[in-house]
Amino acid sequence: MTTPRTRMSPAARRRQLIDLGVEMARDQPLELITMETVAEAAGVSKGLLFHYFESKADFHLCLISEQAQEMLARTEPQEDLGDPIAMLYASVGSYVDYVAANGRGFISVIRGSASADDAIREVAERTRAAMSERILSRAGLLGLERTPAVELAVAGWVAFVEEMLVRWLENPVVSRDELIAIFVGALPSLAGLVSSVTAAD
Amino acid sequence: MTTPRTRMSPAARRRQLIDLGVEMARDQPLELITMETVAEAAGVSKGLLFHYFESKADFHLCLISEQAQEMLARTEPQEDLGDPIAMLYASVGSYVDYVAANGRGFISVIRGSASADDAIREVAERTRAAMSERILSRAGLLGLERTPAVELAVAGWVAFVEEMLVRWLENPVVSRDELIAIFVGALPSLAGLVSSVTAAD
Repeated sequence: MTTPRTRMSPAARRRQLIDLGVEMARDQPLELITMETVAEAAGVSKGLLFHYFESKADFHLCLISEQAQEMLARTEPQEDLGDPIAMLYASVGSYVDYVAANGRGFISVIRGSASADDAIREVAERTRAAMSERILSRAGLLGLERTPAVELAVAGWVAFVEEMLVRWLENPVVSRDELIAIFVGALPSLAGLVSSVTAAD
Repeated sequence: MTTPRTRMSPAARRRQLIDLGVEMARDQPLELITMETVAEAAGVSKGLLFHYFESKADFHLCLISEQAQEMLARTEPQEDLGDPIAMLYASVGSYVDYVAANGRGFISVIRGSASADDAIREVAERTRAAMSERILSRAGLLGLERTPAVELAVAGWVAFVEEMLVRWLENPVVSRDELIAIFVGALPSLAGLVSSVTAAD
């Protein structure tokens, strides 16, 4: 560290520790990120770490929330692209790239199953809901009608994307661009299927 | 109980306790099924329960394994139906009905996220793999080619089905038959999409 520790404000120090945790989460699962390993990597005492975060669970929650926010920011639909399919391609592409770059740690949040912690599961649920809402709020642009059945299908599509992405990261049997094309193509296909199945109502 | 307790063999008693647990899991989440509540419902002492199951986690694992086996048995493809789409309809229909009848408890296993227990997650993973394998081993019948990309898509389809099913149980915005038609229709549609996207390789 180039800045002497004593000069850092509490907010800056907290920020630095979270950034370090996010960095550590890139190539290891959350359960390996303990107060010990973080304190050691930051060159601070465990006591100082506990001054900023009341528990390991609290620290993990901060990491996950940070990653979820960052992911949502990077995948924000670019309205200036105009064409909704181009927007979807760009957004899904950024999602795949963000998860690929942030690796194993981020998988914890997107699947929510790596932890029994309710607070973390809630972040995962909120993140999923935000992803779905982005699509549903643009349903018209994508040629879909926003119905409860289509909402259900979009939630299913998010799970489809997560599952394939997690497996793809472990075993990339298709290229990145093929993966993105599958994700983008599946959305209107699934939503269209739902509309046609429920059209008779 | 009509049979005096002392007459039951250890295996029969164990079986009875698991059946009771499966019954209890129909309308409550796994975390509410404790050694206390099971012992009380069975009219036995907690000590006796611990004689058969070394911990609550062990008891839960037995329940989940039992449910997974039962679900797989009930959804076994009926080869005598001949037509692969009819087989898929029957199998997916039995799956939806099994999960609907076994309610909240079974959701724990199919999502695997309600518990941080590795052993339970492993049962969930094995169950998913068995579901995928049934489809993949009949890929030809369904007009699909078994490629790594199609395997990936089938895993995604299983996640899609689970997610929609869990949400549908909480809020049935489409009918049972519509739900099944969506699940059945999504499989060739997703697999076909994957084949067309990867065909250029």
